Amino acid sequence: MSLRSRDQKHIWHPLTQHQLYPETLPIVKAEGVFFYDENGKRYIDGISSWYTSMYGHGNAKITAAVAKQMQTLDFVMFSGFTHAPAVELSEKLMEILPENQAKIFFNDNGSTAIEAAIKMALQYYYNRGEKRDTLIALEDGFHGDTFGAMSASGISSYNGPFEDFLLKVERIPVPTHDNRDEVLDQLETVLQNNSCAAFIFEPLVQGAAGMKFHGAKELDLLIKKCQDAAVLCIADEIMTGFGKTGKNFASDHLTNPPDILCLGKALTAGMFPLSITSCSQKVFDAFLSNEVTKGFFHAHTFSAHPLGCASAIAGLDLLNSVEILGKRQHIAENHKKFVERITHHEKVSNARCKGVILAVDLNIKAHRYGNLRDTLYHFFMDHGVNLRPLGNTIYTIPPYVIGEEELQHIYDTIEKALDIV
Amino acid sequence: MSLRSRDQKHIWHPLTQHQLYPETLPIVKAEGVFFYDENGKRYIDGISSWYTSMYGHGNAKITAAVAKQMQTLDFVMFSGFTHAPAVELSEKLMEILPENQAKIFFNDNGSTAIEAAIKMALQYYYNRGEKRDTLIALEDGFHGDTFGAMSASGISSYNGPFEDFLLKVERIPVPTHDNRDEVLDQLETVLQNNSCAAFIFEPLVQGAAGMKFHGAKELDLLIKKCQDAAVLCIADEIMTGFGKTGKNFASDHLTNPPDILCLGKALTAGMFPLSITSCSQKVFDAFLSNEVTKGFFHAHTFSAHPLGCASAIAGLDLLNSVEILGKRQHIAENHKKFVERITHHEKVSNARCKGVILAVDLNIKAHRYGNLRDTLYHFFMDHGVNLRPLGNTIYTIPPYVIGEEELQHIYDTIEKALDIV
Repeated sequence: MSLRSRDQKHIWHPLTQHQLYPETLPIVKAEGVFFYDENGKRYIDGISSWYTSMYGHGNAKITAAVAKQMQTLDFVMFSGFTHAPAVELSEKLMEILPENQAKIFFNDNGSTAIEAAIKMALQYYYNRGEKRDTLIALEDGFHGDTFGAMSASGISSYNGPFEDFLLKVERIPVPTHDNRDEVLDQLETVLQNNSCAAFIFEPLVQGAAGMKFHGAKELDLLIKKCQDAAVLCIADEIMTGFGKTGKNFASDHLTNPPDILCLGKALTAGMFPLSITSCSQKVFDAFLSNEVTKGFFHAHTFSAHPLGCASAIAGLDLLNSVEILGKRQHIAENHKKFVERITHHEKVSNARCKGVILAVDLNIKAHRYGNLRDTLYHFFMDHGVNLRPLGNTIYTIPPYVIGEEELQHIYDTIEKALDIV
Repeated sequence: MSLRSRDQKHIWHPLTQHQLYPETLPIVKAEGVFFYDENGKRYIDGISSWYTSMYGHGNAKITAAVAKQMQTLDFVMFSGFTHAPAVELSEKLMEILPENQAKIFFNDNGSTAIEAAIKMALQYYYNRGEKRDTLIALEDGFHGDTFGAMSASGISSYNGPFEDFLLKVERIPVPTHDNRDEVLDQLETVLQNNSCAAFIFEPLVQGAAGMKFHGAKELDLLIKKCQDAAVLCIADEIMTGFGKTGKNFASDHLTNPPDILCLGKALTAGMFPLSITSCSQKVFDAFLSNEVTKGFFHAHTFSAHPLGCASAIAGLDLLNSVEILGKRQHIAENHKKFVERITHHEKVSNARCKGVILAVDLNIKAHRYGNLRDTLYHFFMDHGVNLRPLGNTIYTIPPYVIGEEELQHIYDTIEKALDIV
């Protein structure tokens, strides 16, 4: 039986309506910026496998680091114990995280990094004897699929069946140059009418919403207002982290650093599920007490897994290497040129880029998971590029190591796709 | 600076009150059933690193499988794509899971496996146009640390600050031979007075509660009553799965199989954060529709990670091999003998075992994270054994590959510990 049929027998895929989409494409190999199907057809990984494999698949330095770690210490619990890979990773992160970040808490994936962040914020007040029960979040934000993370998210196609089971969240519009004062007023009202514990946001780029951008200046004003009201600010940098926006973190574009930061995805270069919730000393100190239970009683079995830490260290060594920095800049410059080239195309309502993130909105209405999206998806795959449009937004976040020819092929294919819609 | 001091600078450990417990022990190496500190002192991993590393640390077959997989396909998104490791793992699981299990959904850790299970149950009814908003759970159950998983858990030291933010849960006592009819009545009342979506439980052994056992017969009656009321039954086998209770799964001791099963921990033999939520065809079918949004829109980036699947396949090949089966049985028999030896000890209120799980309750009251627990913990570590008492319960779940001498050393050390309490 073919791999495809065997898959259908027992596997339930994420984000998939199996009645309409019973078929999956078996991938047998991945190398550099490509992955390959059973017929040897190759595809450019145009979104770096959900923004993770930034240094290419099977990167020799990263696989070597994991292989070496397996030979010395594969795994040990992280409660009561520590190990060199976790310590080294914490030090390397501290070198590049916003200056106010002081402590590193380990989780396994983006959703659980957000859960930890929300729990930290709620317990921060609980430990001080203050009850704060409300989160503030941006419209159309996306923060993950567990109940806490879903609560913060504002995309209805993910949350529909669970709306009645979520934490209390007040949602404010994404700030722009034009609506800035209005949003600030709205935030003011939210702060006055609720006991707010935290403001959670994807800084500068809302990924799942369709790679929507907003300005650092405007976001800074919201953060300032929240911090003035002693509301903790949580930056979800799971997508934007590790160089995507041109700087190490999107928060590096801000004047007011967040109190808590969530990292994942590219952290381990796609090699391992590992995520991090970092925070300022102020947040950590609120959990110090002679009462045991004022500590943070949150744990995942595989917390700070040595193999995950080893792959993350290898990835961080690459992130700001001369070679990768040059490539990141090269992609950013080419993205700008492509935006100029395509911005006035009759089918395009908006083209934009920031760092290695490029997005093109079509001026055609489309459902998030509708026919247009499918047509585009298959057009791209037929042309050997894996891009996953979000409704009517086509975007690419290519691996940093992508070659000139492959990068141009992505642009050309996007441009060609405009002719078929 | 020492690793220990460097750790203190930046790392926030799980389940740790850092003011009282600022120090962690650096572990530099793990091999077989041992891990080693910086001074070369070795410790028997008496709880298999939170019940994961059942085939020993750095197991050659498992590390080889991961190393090989890294060379062909390190990672690809699991939405729209599939790959051989996921397919093979699903087939191998189907061979040993309870017969009614039909589909495999992949997550990264125990908490998210539970989140997926709860979401499946709630959406199962939502998709049928029926609103069911209540979960049923056992007292003192533990199911994880994300908001959904916390809701199902009944251990207050973990949930304290978050009680007001949880899903609606009706809790019933753990059934015993003596309270059986009473608990059944109580369940009947819960079912009549609420719209119950699911009943979630750790079958036969409640781990975090202190390795408390309950009978298959009694649990079967509760499951039957729930299933008769069309309430989905979720077995949390994250701790019990993969041979711990003597059979492949604790559910194998039951007559009424659960509708949904959660697996993690030993699934990958400690090598990788991967978890699974499996379910019956009936559950899966409720998500099939021509409406896209009736699908299950839950996803984690690293879902079905090829390296995790590869390590799980290698682990499953070992689980029921002649060698490991023999060792599992050997441990179980030795546990029984030790229980006999110690059961009437004046300091022991209860000694019990099931499969490779052995637990000894002291007849001394103790806080979950109190002095007695600490005294015992350090006594064991001093004697080269890592055991982590849960309050006044000492327990061991040794790696299947433990040798005779090390197993006896664990027993002897537990017996010696009784003299110091």
